[in-house]
Amino acid sequence: MIPRYSRPEMVSIWSAETRFAIWFEIEAHATSKLAELGVVPKESAENIWKVMNARKAEHGDYGFDVARIDEIERTTKHDVIAFLTHLSELVGPDARFVHQGMTSSDILDTTLSVQMARAADLLIADIDALLAALKRRAYEHKDTITIGRSHGIHAEPTTFGVKLAEAYAEFSRNRARLVAARAEIATCAISGAIGSFANIDPQVEEYVAEKLGLSIEPVSTQVIPRDRHAMFFATLGVVASSVERVAVEIRHLQRTEVLEAEEFFSPGQKGSSAMPHKRNPVLTENLTGLARLVRGMVTPALENVALWHERDISHSSVERMIGPDATVTLDFALGRLTGVIDKLVVYPENMRKNLDLLGGLHNSQRMLLALTQAGYSREDSYAAVQRNAMKVWEMRGDRAGQFAQNLKEDPQVTLSDAQIDAMFDDAYHLKHVDTIFARVFGTGKD
Amino acid sequence: MIPRYSRPEMVSIWSAETRFAIWFEIEAHATSKLAELGVVPKESAENIWKVMNARKAEHGDYGFDVARIDEIERTTKHDVIAFLTHLSELVGPDARFVHQGMTSSDILDTTLSVQMARAADLLIADIDALLAALKRRAYEHKDTITIGRSHGIHAEPTTFGVKLAEAYAEFSRNRARLVAARAEIATCAISGAIGSFANIDPQVEEYVAEKLGLSIEPVSTQVIPRDRHAMFFATLGVVASSVERVAVEIRHLQRTEVLEAEEFFSPGQKGSSAMPHKRNPVLTENLTGLARLVRGMVTPALENVALWHERDISHSSVERMIGPDATVTLDFALGRLTGVIDKLVVYPENMRKNLDLLGGLHNSQRMLLALTQAGYSREDSYAAVQRNAMKVWEMRGDRAGQFAQNLKEDPQVTLSDAQIDAMFDDAYHLKHVDTIFARVFGTGKD
Amino acid sequence: MIPRYSRPEMVSIWSAETRFAIWFEIEAHATSKLAELGVVPKESAENIWKVMNARKAEHGDYGFDVARIDEIERTTKHDVIAFLTHLSELVGPDARFVHQGMTSSDILDTTLSVQMARAADLLIADIDALLAALKRRAYEHKDTITIGRSHGIHAEPTTFGVKLAEAYAEFSRNRARLVAARAEIATCAISGAIGSFANIDPQVEEYVAEKLGLSIEPVSTQVIPRDRHAMFFATLGVVASSVERVAVEIRHLQRTEVLEAEEFFSPGQKGSSAMPHKRNPVLTENLTGLARLVRGMVTPALENVALWHERDISHSSVERMIGPDATVTLDFALGRLTGVIDKLVVYPENMRKNLDLLGGLHNSQRMLLALTQAGYSREDSYAAVQRNAMKVWEMRGDRAGQFAQNLKEDPQVTLSDAQIDAMFDDAYHLKHVDTIFARVFGTGKD
Amino acid sequence: MIPRYSRPEMVSIWSAETRFAIWFEIEAHATSKLAELGVVPKESAENIWKVMNARKAEHGDYGFDVARIDEIERTTKHDVIAFLTHLSELVGPDARFVHQGMTSSDILDTTLSVQMARAADLLIADIDALLAALKRRAYEHKDTITIGRSHGIHAEPTTFGVKLAEAYAEFSRNRARLVAARAEIATCAISGAIGSFANIDPQVEEYVAEKLGLSIEPVSTQVIPRDRHAMFFATLGVVASSVERVAVEIRHLQRTEVLEAEEFFSPGQKGSSAMPHKRNPVLTENLTGLARLVRGMVTPALENVALWHERDISHSSVERMIGPDATVTLDFALGRLTGVIDKLVVYPENMRKNLDLLGGLHNSQRMLLALTQAGYSREDSYAAVQRNAMKVWEMRGDRAGQFAQNLKEDPQVTLSDAQIDAMFDDAYHLKHVDTIFARVFGTGKD
Repeated sequence: MIPRYSRPEMVSIWSAETRFAIWFEIEAHATSKLAELGVVPKESAENIWKVMNARKAEHGDYGFDVARIDEIERTTKHDVIAFLTHLSELVGPDARFVHQGMTSSDILDTTLSVQMARAADLLIADIDALLAALKRRAYEHKDTITIGRSHGIHAEPTTFGVKLAEAYAEFSRNRARLVAARAEIATCAISGAIGSFANIDPQVEEYVAEKLGLSIEPVSTQVIPRDRHAMFFATLGVVASSVERVAVEIRHLQRTEVLEAEEFFSPGQKGSSAMPHKRNPVLTENLTGLARLVRGMVTPALENVALWHERDISHSSVERMIGPDATVTLDFALGRLTGVIDKLVVYPENMRKNLDLLGGLHNSQRMLLALTQAGYSREDSYAAVQRNAMKVWEMRGDRAGQFAQNLKEDPQVTLSDAQIDAMFDDAYHLKHVDTIFARVFGTGKD
Repeated sequence: MIPRYSRPEMVSIWSAETRFAIWFEIEAHATSKLAELGVVPKESAENIWKVMNARKAEHGDYGFDVARIDEIERTTKHDVIAFLTHLSELVGPDARFVHQGMTSSDILDTTLSVQMARAADLLIADIDALLAALKRRAYEHKDTITIGRSHGIHAEPTTFGVKLAEAYAEFSRNRARLVAARAEIATCAISGAIGSFANIDPQVEEYVAEKLGLSIEPVSTQVIPRDRHAMFFATLGVVASSVERVAVEIRHLQRTEVLEAEEFFSPGQKGSSAMPHKRNPVLTENLTGLARLVRGMVTPALENVALWHERDISHSSVERMIGPDATVTLDFALGRLTGVIDKLVVYPENMRKNLDLLGGLHNSQRMLLALTQAGYSREDSYAAVQRNAMKVWEMRGDRAGQFAQNLKEDPQVTLSDAQIDAMFDDAYHLKHVDTIFARVFGTGKD
Repeated sequence: MIPRYSRPEMVSIWSAETRFAIWFEIEAHATSKLAELGVVPKESAENIWKVMNARKAEHGDYGFDVARIDEIERTTKHDVIAFLTHLSELVGPDARFVHQGMTSSDILDTTLSVQMARAADLLIADIDALLAALKRRAYEHKDTITIGRSHGIHAEPTTFGVKLAEAYAEFSRNRARLVAARAEIATCAISGAIGSFANIDPQVEEYVAEKLGLSIEPVSTQVIPRDRHAMFFATLGVVASSVERVAVEIRHLQRTEVLEAEEFFSPGQKGSSAMPHKRNPVLTENLTGLARLVRGMVTPALENVALWHERDISHSSVERMIGPDATVTLDFALGRLTGVIDKLVVYPENMRKNLDLLGGLHNSQRMLLALTQAGYSREDSYAAVQRNAMKVWEMRGDRAGQFAQNLKEDPQVTLSDAQIDAMFDDAYHLKHVDTIFARVFGTGKD
Repeated sequence: MIPRYSRPEMVSIWSAETRFAIWFEIEAHATSKLAELGVVPKESAENIWKVMNARKAEHGDYGFDVARIDEIERTTKHDVIAFLTHLSELVGPDARFVHQGMTSSDILDTTLSVQMARAADLLIADIDALLAALKRRAYEHKDTITIGRSHGIHAEPTTFGVKLAEAYAEFSRNRARLVAARAEIATCAISGAIGSFANIDPQVEEYVAEKLGLSIEPVSTQVIPRDRHAMFFATLGVVASSVERVAVEIRHLQRTEVLEAEEFFSPGQKGSSAMPHKRNPVLTENLTGLARLVRGMVTPALENVALWHERDISHSSVERMIGPDATVTLDFALGRLTGVIDKLVVYPENMRKNLDLLGGLHNSQRMLLALTQAGYSREDSYAAVQRNAMKVWEMRGDRAGQFAQNLKEDPQVTLSDAQIDAMFDDAYHLKHVDTIFARVFGTGKD
């Protein structure tokens, strides 16, 4: 997580202030339930909330003093103990009833769940914004004809709107995956040293889970099992790979020879300090790199699953790094991609120009089918079309209409000129755009 | 995929015979629909099915001649064309109506979907078998007390059944993940060269999808988008990591000094050719390695997502290898793990012996709480317990009852002997085993 | 390892026949040394070689019967014992002196070293062939001017020969890395059950190592330490990534809009069954996928390092798969890349055409420097150049000479027309091509 | 890179101050050479050094004002331009001769080389410290007998010193790898927009390289080729995996049931807030996690190799993160491991106790050989040893001397009691410890 690729809202989820606030709420809810169960005095439990809610009303948050907690931790060498000590400074003697029968992991793991769930919420919102931008631009360019390319080579026409509809469909899937990933990690464990509830009633876990909007972990050890976190980070890796796919598409479209679309380039912007003529797709190149970073965090998360027995702590350093890094980086990437799509400069006339570059070769399949239907064998049809196509391929200079021309001049092709010309209307290729839009957006109309 | 780590049923999904059978069914269903749409003659479409179903009735399968197809491919240099040529050898002239308006990718990608869906079905069945074994052994050892370990160090007691219940819960999650992953890739695309349906009606796709039990791909390019496959392989990586977790647990339990459980060792088996005394956990060590292999296939699948434009073919070589390798390896691993669990030799008496190894230290938390409740400050309580615990820790030889003894002799611990002894009953730690079983299995009873 | 992406020479390194031949040689050399040390009878040691060398003289190899060994293994459940049994069938009673004091791992790990060293030799030879192709084509196109591109956007001119020289330099480095990687794994361990030489004299290891061209492993456990193998596979991952870099370059150059170079397309070849006009860069796309596969094997090899204590066997399944897969795949990829480079069709006229596409903008830096030297501030110079460049950028249609034209017409640019024209000779950009070639190839001349 | 797992010296390599100091030195050396070549005035070049060296003499460093540079960058949106502007504020008008004919990448990439080379130097020094600690402890425990374990199961004896000698040999290899990795990335490129030296003489590159202790990059594009960086990070991944291996060994040795060694536990330390009896191997568990993190950065670095054409900028975000993260994390890990080894508490008596746990079974191979040599067939010998060994294996309670006892009582084992007893002296297993030490340390003596 580096500031250059971070947005404040996601960063704040991982701040010390947020962490302590969640710690407090877990502890205070647990104390409330313990009071209800008769383990600690009711008035103490209530007073803790009263004092801290008053602070919140005043400060906007609970107002923990992070520096003070750090100071105490330097003595106690234990973060949760330092926090509890500071809490008692704020709350007074009632604080001694906090944390009864709980272990540090109960707090730490449940807090991580809350943080990851909140991070997932932001990422889902990011995708919603991206979907909105994709949909808007897709409808804008629903009928903007452009060449479809397989292997980087011209194939047959499609529309730029359909390209964006593909991205929309892909990110709709990613949204659903993130919702599932969120559910994976939104669990609460307050079950003690090895998950046996020896020193705390399972009802406390149930109560805290409900208060925090989590489900209970059916069986925990000292920790929430790490297959959940692995699935979460694996999902982020898939989403990042989709970001890369769209980024690579735009980088291709902006290539000098293609230039069908371009990242927005503001007046006064400099593409290169040395070469004043440059406008580079630096945002999408950056997204490509960010995707690599997020993907690189998947395997460490998978390696974290096989903790020893009821837990070891090897996962902890991994999560301290990839928890913030993966979510902050992906959040930034999704935001950046949304901006790119939103402001993407599209050049329909270049799309048209490129489409015509090969002198009509994008209709080679139609011509093949026409010849077959006219009674030629598949082999002869293929040979005739390929022969005339390759002549165009190898031409230099203006090829406009050249494929049709060649076919008309080929003595072995006995279709009439009119029949040949009929193979070159673009509408043929676009007749199902409405169908596709209806499948993706629910309707072909905006 | 190597024979040593393969099972025939999963291997057969990836055989040439299976592939050609799926190819045929896609083609034949598509032809049926094209007949219905009036594009090809109805009797031809019907005859194709008639001839081939007759072969199937006779041979048990459609009886494609793989060697013959290979021979044709050496001439045509195109696998789908070779297949179609062979099909016409079997079916006669009606075969010329097959593949009308379709492209090779329509067949290839939809076939991959069918294969991956079938592979997922096998994996789900594998997990069901594993869950059954885990559940049986979990109930068998529901009350078999054993020490819980954090950091490899004795913590507090749990039961061996609870350990297995954890594995059960984890694989229940993995089952749900595989069901979701199956849905990800069970889609059908018959949409032509760049997904525009220019030469084939979308109704054909819908018809074939329904016949094959797939959903339609809302918007494809030439290919089904690879975020789907990425999600599938990422899920296999998570499942493999869970396999590793259980395998590592068993490897630990079989260590000479621990020996609480052991892989089944058959009479006549040799653990080592050089050292006749050995019984090694080779199956679970092998599972650890297989997990690494499956995990290693996740990143290539993620890298496959960002194909260029409407497709490039870089994903193909990756999938030719990891498609079979990941599914065959994981299938084998799940089967092997089920066998290990099923026949695992458990040593409750060693569990008991190990539990007592530290002379009662596993009750240090209880003692801490007891002192706190007796009015000692948390700091004093901790110091008293730690002081007496460390004396036991550093003892050599028999420590039975030593922790309680030390506490009784400590002048600063004013609890009565009876109060101290009361802290050492095991039932305290196991009182919520029923709760945990009810959460995991729906009921605490078998 | 699948036949489609395999070459026989590398495959044969991993065959059962090769493995057994190496096993035999290790065993027989060890027996020779044991005879010298007086542990076994000299005549027996000599006779073993005599019998087997006679077989070799007759059969071309030692003629082990793999099926027979498999058959024995089905009874003994131990591969090395099965081999030794078969050996005694071939050699007679003297065979009982083979394998004295050795353990299976001594044979297996040293054999893996021999196989990996041989694989490295093939890969180094592959790179030598690739380097030769790159050098030949580099000199052929030493002066073929082409636009250099940063961010996919035209920057300044270079030559196609320089591009190939870059690839040459990169693969020279890869060659050196492979030589180092070969040295990493070319070690011999014959040290017994946990590496203590309890039952075999270290001199045996030294002798066998020398005979096999290996170094001794200074300290082994039961196995050769896996950091060596990790380094080997990591190196293959780097080489594969370089293969991808060159492959991606060619894929870019073959794009329809660029078409500066093209994979060789043979007469009669079909680029697409549906679209007869297509010529796709399928070989380099395939190389991109193969690179992903090899890279995916790096992490499992790294995870293999942390074996437990003196060894566990988790690495074995990983190496059974990635040993052959990584070397066979990379060997195939290097061979394919060499073929692509060798037969690459280069279009200098298209390079020229593309170079001029932006109407001279590739001299924007020169113009910027010229204005600065003429006394304009850097800011004013930049603004003037960018202003006139962007006008060209946004033009459609023929831009020939347009950048110079704009500058001449700009009243704020007071350079003379002659001064401006002088900024547009290409030789300026190519003046150090000889220097670069001299650095890379040792000389600027062929 | 998070403070918790960072050491200041490595962090400072990646600070803004260090970066600007390297930028300055590259620029100033280049200007010196340009002055020598007559491109810029000699007195200006000299004055720049004079002014800045004076600042350095005064401040200890060049005293760049990072905040001021950031402020300028907010206007110029370009980091190198902001730096140059600030430099001119410090140096005055002579600064206008800086950066003549150079591009930003010349500075940025060469700076990264310097930073990575310095990072490598620190890592090499870290390994030297680790090697020293390993050697000291290895000699200390050269004769401390301990059981060697394969598969986690007792095999045959070795010494704890030999275990440490293995680690020493492994890290000696890692040192050599880091030296090679350093050479990979210690190159200098000052070659302009696409590496053609169009606007700057290659002699400048040569001069700057020499001054900075780098080699020249034989052929660069706009950037230094990323196969170099890939190799660097791959090497860090191997070193991290070796760290994990040693860490896992220690975690195993500290397990409650084994307890042959223990991380140092200071008086006053708390292993667990809830369970006062705990002493956990938290440092080595942490090292396991840190290894996962460093390994996870290898693949992104490999993916960075295939930049498009003469460069795209996708690698940049990756390196901004993994450059500092991988080196800082590995530096911290090596330091922590050195501390662990240095202060490791070793329990020879527990090693002895564990060695005897199986009642002498660790001599089963010797017994097998003895029986064979006494004329028993290999099969009968194996059966006899296994039969008597398994009886011990399945015993509970004290097994001291039990294996020998069983053998003596076995009527089918006709060796005398004396012959059997002779198989149980430990010296047999340790007779080559000196050989091993001589191989690893150059001498068997301290």
